[in-house]
Amino acid sequence: MKNKVTIKDVAKYAGVSPSTVSRVLNNYLHIKPDKRQKVEEAIKELNFEPNEIARSLITNKSKTIGLVVDDISNPFFSETSKVIILKARQLGYEILIYDTSGEEDLKKTLKFLLSRNLSGIIVGSVSRYDQNFEELVGESIPVVYFNRKPEKSNFFSVTMDNKKGSKMTISHLIQKGHSRIAFIGGPFEYSTYYDRYLGYYESINEFGLTIDEELILKGKPTNDYIQNFVTRILSKPDRPTAIVASTDQIAITVLDAIEKNNFRVPNDVAVIGFDNIQVSSNPYIGLTTISQQKSKMAELALNTLILLIEKNLKETPEDVVISPKLITRKTT
Amino acid sequence: MKNKVTIKDVAKYAGVSPSTVSRVLNNYLHIKPDKRQKVEEAIKELNFEPNEIARSLITNKSKTIGLVVDDISNPFFSETSKVIILKARQLGYEILIYDTSGEEDLKKTLKFLLSRNLSGIIVGSVSRYDQNFEELVGESIPVVYFNRKPEKSNFFSVTMDNKKGSKMTISHLIQKGHSRIAFIGGPFEYSTYYDRYLGYYESINEFGLTIDEELILKGKPTNDYIQNFVTRILSKPDRPTAIVASTDQIAITVLDAIEKNNFRVPNDVAVIGFDNIQVSSNPYIGLTTISQQKSKMAELALNTLILLIEKNLKETPEDVVISPKLITRKTT
Repeated sequence: MKNKVTIKDVAKYAGVSPSTVSRVLNNYLHIKPDKRQKVEEAIKELNFEPNEIARSLITNKSKTIGLVVDDISNPFFSETSKVIILKARQLGYEILIYDTSGEEDLKKTLKFLLSRNLSGIIVGSVSRYDQNFEELVGESIPVVYFNRKPEKSNFFSVTMDNKKGSKMTISHLIQKGHSRIAFIGGPFEYSTYYDRYLGYYESINEFGLTIDEELILKGKPTNDYIQNFVTRILSKPDRPTAIVASTDQIAITVLDAIEKNNFRVPNDVAVIGFDNIQVSSNPYIGLTTISQQKSKMAELALNTLILLIEKNLKETPEDVVISPKLITRKTT
Repeated sequence: MKNKVTIKDVAKYAGVSPSTVSRVLNNYLHIKPDKRQKVEEAIKELNFEPNEIARSLITNKSKTIGLVVDDISNPFFSETSKVIILKARQLGYEILIYDTSGEEDLKKTLKFLLSRNLSGIIVGSVSRYDQNFEELVGESIPVVYFNRKPEKSNFFSVTMDNKKGSKMTISHLIQKGHSRIAFIGGPFEYSTYYDRYLGYYESINEFGLTIDEELILKGKPTNDYIQNFVTRILSKPDRPTAIVASTDQIAITVLDAIEKNNFRVPNDVAVIGFDNIQVSSNPYIGLTTISQQKSKMAELALNTLILLIEKNLKETPEDVVISPKLITRKTT
């Protein structure tokens, strides 16, 4: 029986370091094509069979990633979680999802997660002011912020340009002839909601329209709160002809509220959301929305985290910012 | 400095066992009111301050429950997960969600989960034939099946009476004057889909209608598969006037397919789903559906599991079966 071929043998044959071989085996993305080719040839030539246990011994990691969200029943999170789970599994990692809702003490959450022997954490929901992750997690395991990030951060992040997204909604509505445009925000402690609000505010000014505070809903948008707001603004003599909602979920409640007030979409009132959740494309809803290309965003967050885990290097954190896309459907 | 009051002191004062005190502290549900009151009085009297670490030492459990689902992006699972997470937190437990999709080797999944130091597992998706949970988990930690269960099982389960649910759909449609009723099933390896199909089949016969195999779609219902099926059956000279879909998600795709074929809902074709996911109540969809009272089902599964964890007793497994409810909206 011949000796089992090891990663070191492959590395020697290919003329690269063992860690490069490991990176190729783990489908690591940023490898120079010529190096990847050399490694692949060496693997073939030597008939090398990587095995899972050997691989995990090399990296000495649990190969488990924690995914922190604040509401798994929000389709944005359940749909992006799915993308991350499937992609992670391809790359040899398992995902455990942790939902923070109802837990006010984020430090408790973090201590809990840090005791779970994770290789790294993707944080899908963090407030603009939060420093808990930075303080508690520090450099113990890699963390990547996804979707939202705090204002001060030493971690990598992958987010969308939310301000730009809002500007695209206003620009689209102005092109359609609207000038009275209402806005429904969300909890401003999250960068997503805050930046969407700022983008609305700034572009209303930029395009020479007038800000009317009565057309802006701030605070946590519960269903009742949205229904009352829509009823109130639609009964005004100078009622708005368009409503920008901070999420598709809010926009769908807005559609309901508009119908209950006996107005028609889009003829009487146009509606735009954010997130492009699955149901928004259903022809019965057909919601115009801003897509943050959430599958791409989710994959980037995961790839970045795995890169940090496997390289085990201290790099200067980067903020990857995805460009929004306007998807026009029947509500505008 | 006086000595710290312990659970034993409280138990002695209240005249109950330390484990009863522990159960009161953990908000365990099935405690006799008089015992609970005695313990609460003793806690107050002795100025006892329970602390988390002491509590977890007493029970020697991680107070973490694994929740296994097969598709977190399916609203049924994301919405019930949320119920379980919030309720568990009230009872002092944390939930880690694990999505099995894309992972064919359930044994690998289970070994992974068993290595995570969990107090118990809620299995939201298991095939009718699966024996992996039974064999691998055995009696090491408590397991409760939720929503679906295998045909042979030694574990507790909380499911809906799916056959009865189907009968309710057929009965409702017959009352509305329908006699040509199509059915769209799902993967029959799951008890939910299989029982919904059996219920359809049996009640079509019971009500004296004729089974037409051409009106039944079996197998995994992808969007294309559903679209083609709906187009095919609606082009028949003796086309159906109603379609029962195994889930609301399928039903929503059916609504789309009906519209694309230029038929109207419910005048030309009535549609019923199962699950009562959030979006089904949206007035733009207004889907008639069978509700399994999923919040109640989720809470029951969690309560049963916590009971097994905290009592640490071997009990004869019970199958709790929830009655379905018909929710009539505008698609029938």
